[in-house]
Amino acid sequence: MTPGVDINIGLLDDNDALATANRARLDRAGARCVNLMSSPGSGKTTLLEATVAALDGDLRLAVIEGDMTTELDADRLRARGVPVAAITTGRSCHLEADQVADGLDRLGSLDRFDLVVIENVGNLICPAAYELGEHARVVLVAVTEGEDKPLKYPIMFHGADCVVVTKLDLAPYLKLDIERLKANIQEVNPRAAVLALSAETGAGMTDWLSWLRGQAPTTEPA
Amino acid sequence: MTPGVDINIGLLDDNDALATANRARLDRAGARCVNLMSSPGSGKTTLLEATVAALDGDLRLAVIEGDMTTELDADRLRARGVPVAAITTGRSCHLEADQVADGLDRLGSLDRFDLVVIENVGNLICPAAYELGEHARVVLVAVTEGEDKPLKYPIMFHGADCVVVTKLDLAPYLKLDIERLKANIQEVNPRAAVLALSAETGAGMTDWLSWLRGQAPTTEPA
Repeated sequence: MTPGVDINIGLLDDNDALATANRARLDRAGARCVNLMSSPGSGKTTLLEATVAALDGDLRLAVIEGDMTTELDADRLRARGVPVAAITTGRSCHLEADQVADGLDRLGSLDRFDLVVIENVGNLICPAAYELGEHARVVLVAVTEGEDKPLKYPIMFHGADCVVVTKLDLAPYLKLDIERLKANIQEVNPRAAVLALSAETGAGMTDWLSWLRGQAPTTEPA
Repeated sequence: MTPGVDINIGLLDDNDALATANRARLDRAGARCVNLMSSPGSGKTTLLEATVAALDGDLRLAVIEGDMTTELDADRLRARGVPVAAITTGRSCHLEADQVADGLDRLGSLDRFDLVVIENVGNLICPAAYELGEHARVVLVAVTEGEDKPLKYPIMFHGADCVVVTKLDLAPYLKLDIERLKANIQEVNPRAAVLALSAETGAGMTDWLSWLRGQAPTTEPA
């Protein structure tokens, strides 16, 4: 189906141009942007809730929340006092740069924020193909998903700047070799930071917060 | 992006025609086909391994195994003595009917089988849009994924004939209201059979095997 492929490449070019514009807009405001991706149920929203609680205002966060149909996740974060722009994608399996541009519009003046976190639609495949204007990509994989996911979904893991192994508190109840999981991540992507944590118990959260603080701008905006 | 949408509808029409041909071919052979879908790591392959062990030859099973890049899951099922046709989809996020037609070719004479199970690519969104020629759709959701997934990914759950809640052995370690999860499934899809099981402990397997036996042909092929 060569025609379809060509058309998709054209659409991706348009998307990438919009993504570049989003990034420039964030840069001008002195804000950085992280694109958070994973399967459904790997714990993206739970990690964000725990992050907001642990940061306790230390970084000025905003969230662009992508979901197919509901604002359930957006509401969980709003309840924590975080500014959230919710985007419902309908039948679509990923966020695109034009939707993020709309989300940035709705967040208002971006110089109020150090970090804009995009919580992408739960999907370990399609979101990897779409630049959104982020400065860094974080991929979550829960211990409950097994050791083999980096090998089976390599495109997503290959593009990550940071891979966070979540639900560490459940590891004792699983036949899981966590070192094997980490080795599989590093086989697919040797440059990614690899962290492991439990948002439930707080184990490993310090390393995550440290990584996240490292993404925030260190100087005042120009 | 209306042109893209129209093109996709055209491609789906082509896919559906091939799916109808797949179904007719299975019907002629007296075999039935189940399309197994879920997020990555919900336990599709583990459930199939446990199913093969529990059936102990009672149904003549074959598997068409969809994965992006590896044959890891196919090899796990081959190790159980099941005929498997492995399809690697490359960058694609779902199986299509032409790939299943190729898988049926590779399984050889279909009248040797009562049930052909298609294990789709791990993705709770995109596979729902593609008819493959199956007679029934099964969607898995692990207890670790949370109560809200049916509401957040309604298209997949809406199309299911049977929803299987997996990893029941982990429920005691989670803040999960399993009755709420079941109610959310039934809200999105009142006609689906809803089962809950642990392939690890065997709890709930009897109901699953009974549902699966109910899918197999009851009469000899014409």
